[in-house]
Amino acid sequence: MSKIRLFNAKILTMKDREAADGEIWIDGKKITYVGAPKNTDISFDREIDCAGDLLMPGLKNAHTHTAMTFGRSLADSASLDDWLHKHIFPIEAKLNEDNIYWFSQLGYAEYLANGVTACFDMYLKPDAQAKSAVDAGFRHVFCGAVNDFGGMDTLEDEYNRFNNYDELVSYQLGFHAEYTTSEGIMKQISEISHKYEAPVFAHVSETKREVDGCIDRYGMSPVKVFDKLGLYDFGGGGFHCVWFDDEDLDIYQKRGLSAAFNCCSNLKLASGAARVDRFITRGVNIAVGTDGAASNNALNMFREMFLLSTLPNLYVDGGAFVDPYEILKAGTVGGARMMGLDDCDILAEGKQADIIRIDMKHPVMRPVNNTVANIVYSGHPGIVKMTMIAGNILYENGEYSTIDLDKVIDTTDKMMDSLR
Amino acid sequence: MSKIRLFNAKILTMKDREAADGEIWIDGKKITYVGAPKNTDISFDREIDCAGDLLMPGLKNAHTHTAMTFGRSLADSASLDDWLHKHIFPIEAKLNEDNIYWFSQLGYAEYLANGVTACFDMYLKPDAQAKSAVDAGFRHVFCGAVNDFGGMDTLEDEYNRFNNYDELVSYQLGFHAEYTTSEGIMKQISEISHKYEAPVFAHVSETKREVDGCIDRYGMSPVKVFDKLGLYDFGGGGFHCVWFDDEDLDIYQKRGLSAAFNCCSNLKLASGAARVDRFITRGVNIAVGTDGAASNNALNMFREMFLLSTLPNLYVDGGAFVDPYEILKAGTVGGARMMGLDDCDILAEGKQADIIRIDMKHPVMRPVNNTVANIVYSGHPGIVKMTMIAGNILYENGEYSTIDLDKVIDTTDKMMDSLR
Repeated sequence: MSKIRLFNAKILTMKDREAADGEIWIDGKKITYVGAPKNTDISFDREIDCAGDLLMPGLKNAHTHTAMTFGRSLADSASLDDWLHKHIFPIEAKLNEDNIYWFSQLGYAEYLANGVTACFDMYLKPDAQAKSAVDAGFRHVFCGAVNDFGGMDTLEDEYNRFNNYDELVSYQLGFHAEYTTSEGIMKQISEISHKYEAPVFAHVSETKREVDGCIDRYGMSPVKVFDKLGLYDFGGGGFHCVWFDDEDLDIYQKRGLSAAFNCCSNLKLASGAARVDRFITRGVNIAVGTDGAASNNALNMFREMFLLSTLPNLYVDGGAFVDPYEILKAGTVGGARMMGLDDCDILAEGKQADIIRIDMKHPVMRPVNNTVANIVYSGHPGIVKMTMIAGNILYENGEYSTIDLDKVIDTTDKMMDSLR
Repeated sequence: MSKIRLFNAKILTMKDREAADGEIWIDGKKITYVGAPKNTDISFDREIDCAGDLLMPGLKNAHTHTAMTFGRSLADSASLDDWLHKHIFPIEAKLNEDNIYWFSQLGYAEYLANGVTACFDMYLKPDAQAKSAVDAGFRHVFCGAVNDFGGMDTLEDEYNRFNNYDELVSYQLGFHAEYTTSEGIMKQISEISHKYEAPVFAHVSETKREVDGCIDRYGMSPVKVFDKLGLYDFGGGGFHCVWFDDEDLDIYQKRGLSAAFNCCSNLKLASGAARVDRFITRGVNIAVGTDGAASNNALNMFREMFLLSTLPNLYVDGGAFVDPYEILKAGTVGGARMMGLDDCDILAEGKQADIIRIDMKHPVMRPVNNTVANIVYSGHPGIVKMTMIAGNILYENGEYSTIDLDKVIDTTDKMMDSLR
C-alpha cells in the first residue's frame, strides 16, 4: 500500500468538461486528494512530476472478449455468421485454461498500453480468466456467457463466486444473445436476476439478420423479447445495439438500461453502424467497447470513440455532430456505470485510483484548442504514458510492472502453433 | 552521407504481401541492399539490431494541409461549408509566413511519429512551407492551390521553382476545387498542364452538395468538367472522391488517374463515405490521405486505412470485405505513384531510403497471424519506432533529430493566442 503524488498536471476529472491545473494524491487503492496544487507534509513513497501532462479516469472497455487476442487477423473478411461458425467456433473448441490465461495476459497488456483500466468481458473458462486478471492487477468485470451450448448450470455459482473472489474482480449476470439462447434458458436467467435483484446483459441487435430472425421466432425484436421475459426488470443492458427501433429505444430509456457500442467490430464484420445520437437524445446511459481483438482487430478505445462520435454523420442530413464530451463520458463514466463500477468513474476523493496519464507533448495533442475534442478526435494509444489501477502503476513509458510481455509473446506464439 | 545497416528484421517490401527475415543497407539517401541476412565487410556508420521488428516503406499521406495543425479541435461539429466559411477562412486571412513555418513543423513532427515519410500538400505561402519541410528533412510534394481568390498568377512560377528547389521538395499542378475555381481559371491551368505535359490534381466530389452545384452550373459532375477542360489529359487525379458515379469511375479508369481518400475528415464533416471497393474493382490507382488536422483532427494514416478498408461494408449487402493488402498498397505504393515519387514506393535496391520500423513486440501486433492485416486493422501511430527519410533517421523511440519539439510547442502556443 503506497502513497503516490501526481503533481504539475492538468486534470480532467470527468465531473465536467474543463481540465484544470492540479495534483492528485493516492493512498493505497484510493484517491485522497484531487484539486489545485497544494503544500503538504505527507511523506509520499513516490512523487511524479507530470510536466503538464493530462490525468483523467482510465477508459472503461464496456464490451470485450479479452482472451480472443488469439484470433487477431486470423480470419478477416467475413460476415459475423461466417466468421463465428467457420473460423472462431472451431478454434474455441480447442481452447484450454492455459490458453485463456495467456491470451488474456496479452489482452491486459494491450489494455494497459491503451489507457484502459477496466473491462466488461464475456468469454469462457472464468477461473483461468480471473487468475490472469488478478495476476495482471487488472480490473475485470465478468459478464455471464450462457447460451444453448452451456453456462446455465454454472451461472449462479459463478455469480456468487466471482463477486467474492478479489477486489479487482466482479461478475454481472449475462448471456450470449437471443439467437443462441432458447426461451427456456432466458427464463431461467430471468429467475436468477429476480432472486438477486441483479441486472442482466447480452449482445443485442448486432446485425439486421439477428433482429429479423428474432421477429420470425417471437414476433418482436430482441430488446422486446428480453423485456417481456423480465430480463430487464433490475436493469442491465446490451452490447452492440446497432439495429434498435424507436420502441427498443423507449425500453432502454424507460428501464434506465445501458448500451455499449462496438463500432470497429461492426464495421469490420459488415454488421452496420450504431446511432449513438439517438441514445444521447433520450438520455440512455451509453458506453464504449472494443469487442474482441478477433473481430476488431484492436482493443483501441480511441478509435472506437472517434467512430462512435462520427458515424452518425452518415445518417443525419446535415450532420449529427455528436458532442465529443458525451463520447468521452461514455468511454469513462458511462462504462463504469454499466459495469457496476460506481467507485471507478470520475477522479474524486474516495474513488478508486484508476487513472491514466496522457502525453500533452505529443504533437497530436497540440495545440490545445479543446482538450476533450483532442482526446476523442485526435487521440490514439500512443499518447498514453501511464496507466494506474487501484493505486498501482501497471504501465509507464512502455514498461509493465505486472506483466512479463516477452514471456507472454513467447508463450502465446507457441500456443498459436496448435490452435491455427 | 552515412552508411546504415538495419539487421535482424522482418521486411515487408510492398512488392508482395509476405514479410521475410532480412536486412537493409543504406548508403547516403538510397537503399543499396534489401534481402536475406548477409555477411559483408562494408564499414557502416551505424548498425541497428531491429530485434525482429518490421521494416516497411514509409506511409505516404496523399492529401493533406500540413500547416492546418493550428485548427485542430478549434471548430468541430460543423459541415464542410460552415466549417470552411465561418471558422477556417477568417483565421487563414491572418496567417503569416512564420505561422506556416511553425505549424508545419508541428505537422511534420506528427507525420514522423506516425510513420509518414511524404505528404502531398495543398496550402498557402509555399516559400515558408518549403523551408519548413527542408529544415525538418521531410519529403514534401506541393499541389498547386489555385482558386478564384488567388494563386493563378504564381502557379507556373511555383511549378518551376519548387521542382528545382531541393531533392526533398517537388511540385504538382493543382487547384482547390470546381466550386471555388471559375471555368476561365481552370482553362488557364489546363493550358499550363499541356505546356508541361504535367498531371493536374484537385479536390473532387467531396460532398453531394458540391456535385449537385456543379451539375447546376455545368450540367455534369466535377470529374466530367475537369475531363472536358483537358485537365486530365496528362494524368493527375482527385482528393476525397466520395460522390463518384459510374461515368466518373470510367474516366478515372480510362485516364489512369489517381484517387486519394480521406475517410476521417469526410466522416467528421458529414460529407459521406468513400467507396474504395468500386475503385479497386476497376484497377484505379488509389491512395490514402488524412486531410488537414483542422478537420480530421489527426494526421493518423492507420485510422484512415482501417476506415477506408471497412466503410464500404456499410454499403455492400453481405459486406465488401476489401483486401487489406490493397489498402496498405494504397497507403504506400499508390500514394507514391500519385505524388510522382516513383523512387520512394517500395523497399528495393536503388530506391530512396524512406523506411519505417514497426514495433513487433507491441501487444497490438501479437500474435502474428497476418502482418498486413495487423497493420491495417490493428495498427496505430504508437507502433512506429523509427522513421527514416532519404537515409536520415528523423524519428526514433520518441525523439526527433531535426525538429525541436519543445520549441515548436512553445512557438505555436504563442501564435495561437493571436489566431484564435
